[in-house]
Amino acid sequence: MTYCVGIHVNGGLVLASDTRTSSSFDDVRVHGKMHVFEKPGECVFVLMSAGNLATTQAVIATLRRDIENPDAAFSLFSAKRLYEVADYIGKVLVANQAQAAENAQQNSVSVEATLILGGQIAGGEAAVRLIYPLGNWISTSPETPYVQIGETKYGKPILERIIDRETTLENAARCALVSFDSTIRSNVSVGLPVDLAFIRDGELRVDRQVRIDEDTEFYTEIRQAWAQKLTEAVYTLPPFPWETTT
Amino acid sequence: MTYCVGIHVNGGLVLASDTRTSSSFDDVRVHGKMHVFEKPGECVFVLMSAGNLATTQAVIATLRRDIENPDAAFSLFSAKRLYEVADYIGKVLVANQAQAAENAQQNSVSVEATLILGGQIAGGEAAVRLIYPLGNWISTSPETPYVQIGETKYGKPILERIIDRETTLENAARCALVSFDSTIRSNVSVGLPVDLAFIRDGELRVDRQVRIDEDTEFYTEIRQAWAQKLTEAVYTLPPFPWETTT
Repeated sequence: MTYCVGIHVNGGLVLASDTRTSSSFDDVRVHGKMHVFEKPGECVFVLMSAGNLATTQAVIATLRRDIENPDAAFSLFSAKRLYEVADYIGKVLVANQAQAAENAQQNSVSVEATLILGGQIAGGEAAVRLIYPLGNWISTSPETPYVQIGETKYGKPILERIIDRETTLENAARCALVSFDSTIRSNVSVGLPVDLAFIRDGELRVDRQVRIDEDTEFYTEIRQAWAQKLTEAVYTLPPFPWETTT
Repeated sequence: MTYCVGIHVNGGLVLASDTRTSSSFDDVRVHGKMHVFEKPGECVFVLMSAGNLATTQAVIATLRRDIENPDAAFSLFSAKRLYEVADYIGKVLVANQAQAAENAQQNSVSVEATLILGGQIAGGEAAVRLIYPLGNWISTSPETPYVQIGETKYGKPILERIIDRETTLENAARCALVSFDSTIRSNVSVGLPVDLAFIRDGELRVDRQVRIDEDTEFYTEIRQAWAQKLTEAVYTLPPFPWETTT
């Protein structure tokens, strides 16, 4: 399993992914699922993945090869519009899945992957897109300014209550970390370290990228503060009518 | 879908269930999933259900028939130990599933149901048990003093962080309502009204049972207060290191 979140607020984008990969309970490894492609001042893309790791790595390899190939019909760095990038990555994803699936006919392994693309191209707006295994995609919206892939349920309520377009980038990131903490506590196939990246609107580069582990001081502080604040919040909720009349 | 929670704290038991039943998107109905059996001063049982509604209703009918039948080998009101009750309900559940499954061979409908039993028998301890479709069961524990059935993920983080055996009955109930609110917001197949019941340890009856709907004043107060407190909690989390140094 995996957990990745992409958030789009007015200030820019927050992207976060865990790093746990497991092909079974006795085969758990750490692999980064966050891939950054940037040409500072021109374009920036962050791609995060859930699903088959071999498919994901094949997609990333294809994207890098196209960037380095001057004869490539299209590449991340030649794109003019973000939706073209999403279409292109979708096609690369479908092609790589199809190739692996051919060899997987006698096998129950799923070769599918799901991706989150966050980025901005000079002259265009920042955006976050969720790319499905079919190669099609959806964008965030003012009503739902975030997308999730992998183990999405445990961490959704806090995002849904807090995040809107007006949320600051840092508050959105704190909210994402709380969402990760809840997910990590409930699903052992999602695990630290967590990769966190900020793209500020118009900067056309990754403003900050941090890898957060158990001994990252600010993460410990946020987790402890959250546990305490949440307990206080429950303990100070309004009483039931029968509690006040006795 | 469904959402039910059974919580066991030192003060007693809190049981909560939603009431939405759907056989498809265009066939959504309201059915209580909380069934109370009590002989005040001798024993009290609350049974909640997720899964096939016909199976559940058949189980409840069987339990009631056995109570009313003086020749029944066993009934809820003749039981001496709560684990015997769980075993008995498990057997009734398996028998009713088997009967329906015989007729369902050409059909993809699942006839399975999952139950939560909370209760106490004079001379014994209060307990909460989750009864599986196989008829076997698990009990709450000091480490995990709650069980959930149905759509369990959205509402789990708050229970996991807050509830331990020392939590008061009313705080446990407020926490359950927050857990329901999160679940209802995320899964349209879980819906109001919510049934909430309290069994205080040693009282051997349901102390209080309330049906909570959109216009239940204390539920509105709790929801509004929760939304506000949660936002405050996120907004007052510790800053990232780079926020304090600039």
